[in-house]
Amino acid sequence: MRVQAHHRYEELAHFIATLVDNGTLAVGSRAPSLRQICRQRRISLSTALQAYRLLEDRGVLEARPQSGYYVARGRATALKTPAVSRPPAKPTPVAVAGFHVKLLDYARDPALVPLGCAIPSAGLLAATRLDRCLARAARIKGLDCNVYTDPRGDAGLRREIARRAVHWGQAIGPDGIVVTCGCTEALTLALCAVAHPGDTVAIESPTYFGLLHAMEALGVKALELPTDAATGIDIAALEQALKSRRIAACLFASSFNNPLGSTMPEDKKLAVLDLLARHRVPLIEDDIYGDIYFGAERPRPFMALDRRGNTLYCSSFSKTVAPGYRVGWLVAGSRTPQVLERKHALTLCGPALPQAALADFLASGGYDSHLRRITRIFHHNIARMTHAVEKAFPAGTKVTRPAGGFVLWLELPRAFDSRELFAAALAKGICFAPGDVFSASGRYRHCLRLSCAHPWSARIEQGVETLGALTTQMLERSSGRK
Amino acid sequence: MRVQAHHRYEELAHFIATLVDNGTLAVGSRAPSLRQICRQRRISLSTALQAYRLLEDRGVLEARPQSGYYVARGRATALKTPAVSRPPAKPTPVAVAGFHVKLLDYARDPALVPLGCAIPSAGLLAATRLDRCLARAARIKGLDCNVYTDPRGDAGLRREIARRAVHWGQAIGPDGIVVTCGCTEALTLALCAVAHPGDTVAIESPTYFGLLHAMEALGVKALELPTDAATGIDIAALEQALKSRRIAACLFASSFNNPLGSTMPEDKKLAVLDLLARHRVPLIEDDIYGDIYFGAERPRPFMALDRRGNTLYCSSFSKTVAPGYRVGWLVAGSRTPQVLERKHALTLCGPALPQAALADFLASGGYDSHLRRITRIFHHNIARMTHAVEKAFPAGTKVTRPAGGFVLWLELPRAFDSRELFAAALAKGICFAPGDVFSASGRYRHCLRLSCAHPWSARIEQGVETLGALTTQMLERSSGRK
Repeated sequence: MRVQAHHRYEELAHFIATLVDNGTLAVGSRAPSLRQICRQRRISLSTALQAYRLLEDRGVLEARPQSGYYVARGRATALKTPAVSRPPAKPTPVAVAGFHVKLLDYARDPALVPLGCAIPSAGLLAATRLDRCLARAARIKGLDCNVYTDPRGDAGLRREIARRAVHWGQAIGPDGIVVTCGCTEALTLALCAVAHPGDTVAIESPTYFGLLHAMEALGVKALELPTDAATGIDIAALEQALKSRRIAACLFASSFNNPLGSTMPEDKKLAVLDLLARHRVPLIEDDIYGDIYFGAERPRPFMALDRRGNTLYCSSFSKTVAPGYRVGWLVAGSRTPQVLERKHALTLCGPALPQAALADFLASGGYDSHLRRITRIFHHNIARMTHAVEKAFPAGTKVTRPAGGFVLWLELPRAFDSRELFAAALAKGICFAPGDVFSASGRYRHCLRLSCAHPWSARIEQGVETLGALTTQMLERSSGRK
Repeated sequence: MRVQAHHRYEELAHFIATLVDNGTLAVGSRAPSLRQICRQRRISLSTALQAYRLLEDRGVLEARPQSGYYVARGRATALKTPAVSRPPAKPTPVAVAGFHVKLLDYARDPALVPLGCAIPSAGLLAATRLDRCLARAARIKGLDCNVYTDPRGDAGLRREIARRAVHWGQAIGPDGIVVTCGCTEALTLALCAVAHPGDTVAIESPTYFGLLHAMEALGVKALELPTDAATGIDIAALEQALKSRRIAACLFASSFNNPLGSTMPEDKKLAVLDLLARHRVPLIEDDIYGDIYFGAERPRPFMALDRRGNTLYCSSFSKTVAPGYRVGWLVAGSRTPQVLERKHALTLCGPALPQAALADFLASGGYDSHLRRITRIFHHNIARMTHAVEKAFPAGTKVTRPAGGFVLWLELPRAFDSRELFAAALAKGICFAPGDVFSASGRYRHCLRLSCAHPWSARIEQGVETLGALTTQMLERSSGRK
């Protein structure tokens, strides 16, 4: 948020807004009291009050009677949430590759307002300590690490991953973990282990386009399941699908599905596990957003609830600390030998030093406080983005309420064409993800995804404003045509 | 070579042998003159002469009249070279995965004499300068590199690769290069770009088992071509195969085929290119050993000779400086968009900092002298290994004469079973690669490959002695059974 700093009260408002923007002041936390701030900044009470009222007007702070000022808690938006999706009941071959590649190209263009790919900005992740671990590993472990590692990956890193997983009830030994080139290779290897070309894999709809791209590359067909933006897939639809055709596997998000932000409640996860076990269909889960939860507790992944060893678990460090290190992992249970064979054949093993550095980084502590810091920022960004969408987009726009992660999904009237908006937005230097790339069957052209992975800024706020204005114009034109 | 150092002349012999072993004195180079060595080490001429004669007896040095002593040039061995291979004329589905994984496991076991996998020892590669580049990159480029890179890889690294390729006549722009996870991912992506599951790819026979494993993982059938240990595939057999069935692609080594060490002469390479262009069959070439040439000039790869853009070129830094960094590359010409799409889908992109470090390492010079140093050592190792095989293996053993790389291929009488030897050798703590893993059709069980990728040592020499003795026993037993 940009507050022009001409007056002392504006200076103070800018200062407080920055603390909120960079996550120093978390959403819902108490702002410094007026008395404290007057003493610290040597200003009068009236100046401080003027600043706080300005921030209240801008939705940054909220006053609570008898208690003081608090960082506004993603204030209850008037926008509705999207309806349960209605994808086709038949499997579809996938073809999203071209657009996936384009979106990642745009994500590397600093001239574009970054609402497209869900890639946290490097500045926000502040991985200096990890980089120092890498410099150190290169100095002292260079000789030991200049080998082909165990294809499972660095043993120390696997120990750290296993140690962390205990916190959410996942009992995996270091030898059960295969370190991969990001979550992408984890998902690819998991898919290869359970599905062959031509097979059908059931997925959430909408779902992450990178996952669709991997399925396309492997020649696997997608069966898109109706999915609720809060609680995930429609279990009756899944049961129906399992009865009516051969499904090689299911692939669901553990929590905070990208793009919906949906998370199945634990009893629903248990029911899914039961159902799949009865039909002997393995489940691949993608837990890449699991660590970024806004609630009090990290949702448990399927694997932590699965007593039958029917789950393949995929995750990575790309959303939380190091997209540039390309380190993910896969826990494949009894399918580990197939996974390792495939990994040998396709990439042999990953580079040793970045893994050793990450092991050192995790072992030396501070990762949890890092996670809390970035989660506060993402939560704040989601709140700001929701607010900005409410202001800028036409009435009737529906928006998700994710309880984790850093993406928002918008649903507009059917007449809206997100590809048309995409072209218009790109011309104005703004990138976002149009809805249909999240579907194998080309659904959701009237939807779009906004990434909230960069620190909130006036540039981003203006980007959303422009998107909203363009959308309004497009909808007006289309209703005029009718 | 171990020379017990009881006397002064033995001390000197040990000193000179060490210089030869570690490559300080290259094969064919002049040893210090007797006069020099007397002055340097303050010994008498008779002591020096006694040492040099000992080394002459041991085959380390050779005296040339009127000229002095020289490091023995892999003295003409009496062993014959293997016959042209005779694989089946029909395509075969591949199934080598299990043993490939096992061999790589053994390669990580320091208790085994390392004659199995063709992985240079980290000590020999001495990549300290590269590791320093990585430490530096982590310190100063960490923030810029904590992103998903262009899937092509680091732009600086691609410029350095393109710059080097100019030396051997390969005109590729940096944008035509895709950086990969070692040569393995390069080969995988190249195969995916030109062949589908069920397709047939024509290969040399014997060939690298990792390549067979990749073909197995991709469901591609292998058509093994008769191959000469000096000059590569039988071009008439290739022509016959092209006429009689659909071949999706050919996959040949550019130089120093693993395991034979064969290199097609340039006119043969041109003839292969003509033939493939006529039949519209693309060629994938694997140039991973190209930089390790013993002759005066680096052999030119197919791509440098191909005017029709029909070649996909694969290579890597794994054999020359950094197996642990996992950096290879692929030049795919008009097929680059498919390759990039596939890379996006399967691994997204590689880690940024190791690539930036390698770019810095190449740009800062010294790589060519590094290559000359390690090539001298590999050449020396090949000579020593040939000599050791001649001493230890039964008469009639045939052995290749590679002009580059660091592997030797041995052919024994048909009665010999390299898998039986493998089990016996493993029990004695020695690893090598049995012949049949180099063939999709299980040929070459009477052959074996010895890797010469570690500095020559008494342990390695004794390992070869033991292998030879076991082989002799096995052959005697089998002829006794008849």
